[in-house]
Amino acid sequence: MATLSFEPPRGMRDFYPEDMLWRNRVFDAWRQAASAFGFQPYDACVVESLELLQRKSGEEVSEQIYHFEDKSGRQLALRPEMTPTLARMIAARQGRLTFPVKWFAVAQCFRYERMTRGRKREHYQLNLDIIGEESVSAEIEVMAAAATALEKMGMPADAFRIHVNNRALLSELLDKSGIAAAHHPAVFLALDKRGKIPDEAIATLLREEGLDETAIAKTFELLAVETLDQAAEMAGADSPAIARLRELFTLAKVYGIEDRLLFDIAVIRGLSYYTGIVFEAFDTARKFRAIFGGGRYDNLLTTIGGDPTPAVGLGFGDVVVVEVLKDLLGETAAAERNGVAIGYMAPEQREAAMRLAKTLRDAGETVDLSLGKQKPKAFFSRANAGTCADAIYIGPDDVTRGTAKRKHLDTREETEIPLP
Amino acid sequence: MATLSFEPPRGMRDFYPEDMLWRNRVFDAWRQAASAFGFQPYDACVVESLELLQRKSGEEVSEQIYHFEDKSGRQLALRPEMTPTLARMIAARQGRLTFPVKWFAVAQCFRYERMTRGRKREHYQLNLDIIGEESVSAEIEVMAAAATALEKMGMPADAFRIHVNNRALLSELLDKSGIAAAHHPAVFLALDKRGKIPDEAIATLLREEGLDETAIAKTFELLAVETLDQAAEMAGADSPAIARLRELFTLAKVYGIEDRLLFDIAVIRGLSYYTGIVFEAFDTARKFRAIFGGGRYDNLLTTIGGDPTPAVGLGFGDVVVVEVLKDLLGETAAAERNGVAIGYMAPEQREAAMRLAKTLRDAGETVDLSLGKQKPKAFFSRANAGTCADAIYIGPDDVTRGTAKRKHLDTREETEIPLP
Repeated sequence: MATLSFEPPRGMRDFYPEDMLWRNRVFDAWRQAASAFGFQPYDACVVESLELLQRKSGEEVSEQIYHFEDKSGRQLALRPEMTPTLARMIAARQGRLTFPVKWFAVAQCFRYERMTRGRKREHYQLNLDIIGEESVSAEIEVMAAAATALEKMGMPADAFRIHVNNRALLSELLDKSGIAAAHHPAVFLALDKRGKIPDEAIATLLREEGLDETAIAKTFELLAVETLDQAAEMAGADSPAIARLRELFTLAKVYGIEDRLLFDIAVIRGLSYYTGIVFEAFDTARKFRAIFGGGRYDNLLTTIGGDPTPAVGLGFGDVVVVEVLKDLLGETAAAERNGVAIGYMAPEQREAAMRLAKTLRDAGETVDLSLGKQKPKAFFSRANAGTCADAIYIGPDDVTRGTAKRKHLDTREETEIPLP
Repeated sequence: MATLSFEPPRGMRDFYPEDMLWRNRVFDAWRQAASAFGFQPYDACVVESLELLQRKSGEEVSEQIYHFEDKSGRQLALRPEMTPTLARMIAARQGRLTFPVKWFAVAQCFRYERMTRGRKREHYQLNLDIIGEESVSAEIEVMAAAATALEKMGMPADAFRIHVNNRALLSELLDKSGIAAAHHPAVFLALDKRGKIPDEAIATLLREEGLDETAIAKTFELLAVETLDQAAEMAGADSPAIARLRELFTLAKVYGIEDRLLFDIAVIRGLSYYTGIVFEAFDTARKFRAIFGGGRYDNLLTTIGGDPTPAVGLGFGDVVVVEVLKDLLGETAAAERNGVAIGYMAPEQREAAMRLAKTLRDAGETVDLSLGKQKPKAFFSRANAGTCADAIYIGPDDVTRGTAKRKHLDTREETEIPLP
């Protein structure tokens, strides 16, 4: 038989135990932060109906969906994002749920795309969503929970910034520039490509949308706005979009995260379903792609046939944040010694070793029990190379005495313990 | 636009927050028990190469694989089990890993099959594997870890039994009956169907394999063996298979789980790759399908082109165990009140409520903060219907006084707390 490739399929990831250290650090922080903020867990199968995903997603995403037919001819797909599934689950119980609901999921998502740094064909994503709340309390709750997750991972508070904008502000400003509302979605899509394609190409897109040269120039002028005060001056004193942003910054101060927020008119979020405040978090040095992003999407449920419902959501992937953390803290920062290794010299000590393992496990400890006899040198060499903090080696004399030595591998300190 | 179905694809599961209570109880117990026994976590993408899965799996499984082609013509599939992936990952690093390795994963697996009670088209499965250990220490470690997981889920010790057999014993006994080794895999497959199809149909399968009527009668006689001593009498005093089983039961006594183990010659495990001890756990009342199962599979790596390596593994699905637990403990036994709900009367108290939420979260508590003002009745009614253990409602007087009342929702006991 020919040897198979031992690599995972292209773009898919294997997680060896050392990779799981980072993954668990990220997942644990996500779950702890989401729980601390009162989000309830939910989940759904990674396989969704293709029709649901296409209804909700833009064209670009549709082309990137892994899809297939099952043996009954059902059109299925691996979800590229969790939001359509969330919308479906909410819509299914819209009459029974008590709103607002605050839900979170850690969901694997798939996209068929070319692979570049930070882009695999699958990733895991924390989704935080608040459904059924109109006030900006929803936005601040989601942002503060995500910032808390970053801190729980060990990210210093000054190492990231959440860039905030309001699509409603852009709409107000485009209105004032005489650009009709019908053009706004296309303008948002074009402006969102800034930095990825040349400004001239963006101008071409706007021209294709039917904007004249004056309107195009005014559109680019908007992107030159640097502060919320400048934006407020353009939008006018009675701008609801500005009032909402100001309220968000006030609430950020109450949560003590105001210095992690930054007004940034260039944050647009390509996806067409956002309707209000949008945000993206970046490492302060701007070496990496966005760490998380989200915003308000008040029309999602209606696109799949549910009732109109205000909503705020966030997606926070596992790939970029680990790159940022490794860059800041070092490749091996997630490693931790934990638990105790137990070894023994001869088969006669196996039962004593097993009884000790059982006693320590019953007391809540992690115990890596050797599965066969070992010479002391082999045992300690393996224990030092492993992940346990302590090691206990049992020889015939220890069994006779009824005690053994528990050695802390880093400090080499020893404590005598009774053998059960 | 037509309304979409809000149901998940057929055979796939949605997990609403109340479903996650059970799922988290199972997953947490799996992870805690696996860690306590020194298993290291690993994982891989649910998408695998079809060739790998077909190489390892029997015919029956191959037909049940969800497979598809990606845009580059790669033949991919959703894994039906984790073991081929494990074998691939071990084989990829066979020169670098220090054996034995003890690894665990909680892996989603897919099978396209007809749905009956306890059978979905996807499930999650704890996989515990020890690779590179020949002694029965490996078997007992895997069984004890799985039994510990069941206890951590709340399963009483007398509510389940691990039925144990040794395929090598069956081979020895078939040899003694004059049935050549070449027939053994087919005989195992046929006997494994016992209880699912009539004995007469099994006899037909054995006839098709080329066994004569005497051999068929002797095969059925084997299944009448009830105790290890009876089996030992048939196999002879020098039977290595019996010695191994006896050693397993001795070690089970050391771990204090001997009364949870049961010799059962009918446990065969259909999959062709098992070579030695095999086991399956059932609820004692035998109302449900197997809770977990596994055994020794010493030839797996060679089938995909790796070096020969002894191994023991276990698969423990999430569907049957939850059915058993609900049956024993009640549908809602996984529900737990936890954390504190905070509400407020008017917008003027929002900041005080947010500051209190922040203080409690920083201290490690779960806080579900109301996102808007609420009347006291609405707040407490929602809090009582929710999952929080405590509730704090802040009115204007509380802010003036600088204190609020923390109410335990079950006992209605109140404690005065300072507002930060």
